[in-house]
Amino acid sequence: MEKRSADTLIHARWIIPVSGNERFLDHHSVAIRDGDIIDILPTARAREVYEAVKHTSLDNHVLIPGLINTHTHAAMSLFRGLADDLPLMTWLNEHIWPAEQRWIGEQFVTDGARLAIAEMIRSGTTCFNDMYFFADVTGRVAAQAGMRAVVGEVLYDFPSPNYGPIEDGFRYTEMLIDKWRDDPLITIAVEPHSPYLCAPDLLRKAARLATAHAIPLVIHVSETASEVRTIRERHGASPVQHLADLNVLGPNLLACHCVALDATDMDLLGTHHVKVVHNPESNMKLASGIAPVPDLLARGICVALGTDGCASNNNLDLFQAMDITAKLHKVHDMDPTAADARTVLEMATREGAQAIGMGTEIGSLEVGKKADLIIVDIHKPHLVPLYHPASLLVYAAKGSDVQTVIVDGHLVVENGSLVHLDLAEIMHRTNLVARRISQEEKPL
Amino acid sequence: MEKRSADTLIHARWIIPVSGNERFLDHHSVAIRDGDIIDILPTARAREVYEAVKHTSLDNHVLIPGLINTHTHAAMSLFRGLADDLPLMTWLNEHIWPAEQRWIGEQFVTDGARLAIAEMIRSGTTCFNDMYFFADVTGRVAAQAGMRAVVGEVLYDFPSPNYGPIEDGFRYTEMLIDKWRDDPLITIAVEPHSPYLCAPDLLRKAARLATAHAIPLVIHVSETASEVRTIRERHGASPVQHLADLNVLGPNLLACHCVALDATDMDLLGTHHVKVVHNPESNMKLASGIAPVPDLLARGICVALGTDGCASNNNLDLFQAMDITAKLHKVHDMDPTAADARTVLEMATREGAQAIGMGTEIGSLEVGKKADLIIVDIHKPHLVPLYHPASLLVYAAKGSDVQTVIVDGHLVVENGSLVHLDLAEIMHRTNLVARRISQEEKPL
Repeated sequence: MEKRSADTLIHARWIIPVSGNERFLDHHSVAIRDGDIIDILPTARAREVYEAVKHTSLDNHVLIPGLINTHTHAAMSLFRGLADDLPLMTWLNEHIWPAEQRWIGEQFVTDGARLAIAEMIRSGTTCFNDMYFFADVTGRVAAQAGMRAVVGEVLYDFPSPNYGPIEDGFRYTEMLIDKWRDDPLITIAVEPHSPYLCAPDLLRKAARLATAHAIPLVIHVSETASEVRTIRERHGASPVQHLADLNVLGPNLLACHCVALDATDMDLLGTHHVKVVHNPESNMKLASGIAPVPDLLARGICVALGTDGCASNNNLDLFQAMDITAKLHKVHDMDPTAADARTVLEMATREGAQAIGMGTEIGSLEVGKKADLIIVDIHKPHLVPLYHPASLLVYAAKGSDVQTVIVDGHLVVENGSLVHLDLAEIMHRTNLVARRISQEEKPL
Repeated sequence: MEKRSADTLIHARWIIPVSGNERFLDHHSVAIRDGDIIDILPTARAREVYEAVKHTSLDNHVLIPGLINTHTHAAMSLFRGLADDLPLMTWLNEHIWPAEQRWIGEQFVTDGARLAIAEMIRSGTTCFNDMYFFADVTGRVAAQAGMRAVVGEVLYDFPSPNYGPIEDGFRYTEMLIDKWRDDPLITIAVEPHSPYLCAPDLLRKAARLATAHAIPLVIHVSETASEVRTIRERHGASPVQHLADLNVLGPNLLACHCVALDATDMDLLGTHHVKVVHNPESNMKLASGIAPVPDLLARGICVALGTDGCASNNNLDLFQAMDITAKLHKVHDMDPTAADARTVLEMATREGAQAIGMGTEIGSLEVGKKADLIIVDIHKPHLVPLYHPASLLVYAAKGSDVQTVIVDGHLVVENGSLVHLDLAEIMHRTNLVARRISQEEKPL
């Protein structure tokens, strides 16, 4: 019998495909060809029927889909820890916004995005959804690193350090859509900042643009009770209701945060099949509140996971975000069955893919999907014993346990080392920029 | 000029001594002799005035006191992930207690404590306070590993798998006190389980024993609202008031959890100088509630940090506990200034030492204290830039960033490797025990 051919065969002790009902696979192999998963089958059988250029045997590892970080401001990694433990408005008005005014430019975004991507892929994230200035730069840096990303230029009513007036923001976004149309790794989203920084016209126009191109529309919504009060005063409706009134709610909308929701808001999100991004660590650190995730899930709403920017977290490790999500909702609802390990792992993978409109391409290990996957080394004292793989990953594993990362069939992290990025150069640039920022900003 | 002699000189780019007012030291050195810190001074000066057997230069590192885990059940590491996401009473009655009945013995505690200690010292914990069965075994394993520990045999009204009837539990505790009296690393505590598993007589007797020997008294208190109801029904008082009525409250008492407190309880804890152990991750995962840490701190009460046992967390990483503590109280109090990085780092070090009655010996880097210290490697993409060392450690560093650990002046972890423990043997024993447990317990 002639053998079938594959580029790579990965033989894994454990696989969690996050694809449907099966909890995990034991002694199975994944066959990859041309960047796609072409088969998942028992290892003994895989060795019989496939011949591959490369075999990788993983005796003490769990193989899972790459994690998807559905809300980031990547370049803000350069502001990690610049100002912590402060009241929200002091933090924004006296630290973050002035620092952005002073420092943001193409070089800053290049350096910051590169640092963030280094942290993300080393900790098992294979795709991120980024809202920031100079989105083209972030897309370029991600593509160079071999990482998958959705990027969008942040749009709001005021002049931007990148494009200037808002009309040019839309022109810039259209340029992005055109430029990156056929890229295998980078897709573009339309990203108006929020109902409180975007006038109704901007929001309507952004929604029309996203719909016309069938791409995601990403926005911050109901992050704090104070935002809800502001929008009620201005528009006589909650932020979610306000977006509904503007015809902005729809299945391509990613509503980031969704902390301060009432039942009507949740019903609206459900009815319009809006996707929600939960950012537990940022919402905790900024004292924004706790999103009603179990209520959203009970309504069948897609809830994905994000870290938010590094200045309000201060890390981009989705393993930690999974652990905190699982624990936070238990104590918030006083229900130890809330946000179980399996559900949280789905939020960080399959639901994340669904949220960014890539549910048929990534987010689980299934035949026909892209080979975006990560290998977790569990031969460590904090990762034994193994009774339940999902529970081990959520409650005990950390980003630092990720050994190898594959995106689109290509190695991007091998045994903990970055394949396409020069870590020494990243560290050098980061320290250079940080030294300048320290001198001028006089950190606390 | 003749040089002064030291065993070791550690030259560090950054030191956070956690000793008083100074936030951090830059380019300073720690001189160690006979297990004690004998000097902390600028590196240039240290090179002039000291000659040492060993010099260690740390150009990209932060040196801090070893972390102190003030509440563990170490051997439960073998139950990590055995049963998660379950209602509390199902978890206890159907999983944890039967598993303990079935499996606990000297060999189990040896294996489990060794696994826990491997995880703890590799993640930067230099001292832990353990309540479990066969405390002598845990003490022996810790001493072999070169780790500092307070251990106590868990005492309650029912027959114990170790000592049998409670009278023998007291005899066992007295044996421990006698046996470990002069040990440089191990100290003994009296550890009655809780007001709900210990009759008034047991509690009084335990308190008298601890006071007679001037050693810590450790107990679970007010972990859940349901416990408070039970004690109110039985004794007509809250658990804290009940302990006050029995004359058990005092400065040597470590009250673990303290989740369900009212203002009177907090006043009582403050008046009697009781020490509190906060276990945020366990309290979240079991949906027990959130301890009023900022209120306790505002009363000047000593609040230390613990992980609790591995079955309800499921890790022993105090770096993660610090991050979660800092974030949890911000969102719980809706105050982004609550539980700032500096305060949380103190909880995990200086306050921990204070809590276990070792405030003059460990918990900070000061001349005359024991050399219990850890070295964190910050030359990593998730640990740059560095604006504030304490903030970086709490919000961005993880246990896996700990490179080297020194206890009592001796290396116990060197460049990530355990010095006194055989990791291969630990993994082998763990997998052996876990396989047996899996077969009989049929994990979910």
